[in-house]
Amino acid sequence: MNSVDILIKNLSSLPGIGKKSAARIAYYLLKADRNYIKAFANSICDAVEKIKNCKTCGNYTEDEICEICSNPGRDKNIICVVEMPQDITVIESTGIFTGQYHVLMGHISPIDGIGPDQINIKQLLQRLDKENIGEIIIATNPSVEGDTTALYIQKLLAGKEIKITKLASGLPVGGDLEYTDKLTLVRSIQGRLPL
Amino acid sequence: MNSVDILIKNLSSLPGIGKKSAARIAYYLLKADRNYIKAFANSICDAVEKIKNCKTCGNYTEDEICEICSNPGRDKNIICVVEMPQDITVIESTGIFTGQYHVLMGHISPIDGIGPDQINIKQLLQRLDKENIGEIIIATNPSVEGDTTALYIQKLLAGKEIKITKLASGLPVGGDLEYTDKLTLVRSIQGRLPL
Repeated sequence: MNSVDILIKNLSSLPGIGKKSAARIAYYLLKADRNYIKAFANSICDAVEKIKNCKTCGNYTEDEICEICSNPGRDKNIICVVEMPQDITVIESTGIFTGQYHVLMGHISPIDGIGPDQINIKQLLQRLDKENIGEIIIATNPSVEGDTTALYIQKLLAGKEIKITKLASGLPVGGDLEYTDKLTLVRSIQGRLPL
Repeated sequence: MNSVDILIKNLSSLPGIGKKSAARIAYYLLKADRNYIKAFANSICDAVEKIKNCKTCGNYTEDEICEICSNPGRDKNIICVVEMPQDITVIESTGIFTGQYHVLMGHISPIDGIGPDQINIKQLLQRLDKENIGEIIIATNPSVEGDTTALYIQKLLAGKEIKITKLASGLPVGGDLEYTDKLTLVRSIQGRLPL
């Protein structure tokens, strides 16, 4: 196996990249400028070496505490619990949420051997003891694992005087009632709102 | 811009990788094993540093002369002219061609400012002077640029006593006459074969 084959094999191990795309990318890289390639390879190592998890919320950051946790302008009273750091990027892009985050780094999934201790639930409880939190929005994915995780956290916090909410499930904006799947429709009926 | 954003930007500059795929790959890399990441980044630099063009045919190789050119079992009498090294991989995968190759590293495309001097046509003529070649198969892409390049080479070799052929154009195997585009159908009628 020569170095091109190794590169193609490595590239095809990336999510969403098949063998053909990997070959296409490899041949593109071989034709590209040497300095660009070095910068590209460095940016991979750089990101992996510099990025760590925020000591408070678990978000990816280059510092001890992430930008959001260290921002005095953010609402310290509300925490939005998400599965992964990329979920924060999506919620931040809406601009509607101004509170704190907490990243679980996964979800409860007994099939994959991931229990509550394997994700950052303990750290969330510690934060609730230390910080003055009035509301927790559980923004796990609307999947079986996400819902399980949400339910687990809800039960854990049952005794505490904290308002617990979750993201509304229902019809996507611009969607079509006719083509909406049954489960989504069930949730949008259960969660119907007064007009 | 932190190192994750830089990585995402770099990844999205690859062919076929959009912003969402780039983010997905970046977050995958951040969660991956450090040693794997280093090996991955190294394989990029490695390939770009080690791989050069074969002195004879222009194919990618780690040596001076590529595997195919240095293989005494290959037919030295016939050269298949292709646009890019990846075309060799595809033709080799069929196992039907046992001759030599010549890689043009592109095609003639006046719009992009690529004339005959920017691709390895001169090197092909030099080979024809030195080597004893009986047939040239022009296997450029069945596109406007590929056909232009084929025509140009054909005219260049008009005086020489070399058989010049090109790949047959026509219906793809397993295809459907009804859904074949007009140009392909025209070519398959023009190139009809006796039964």
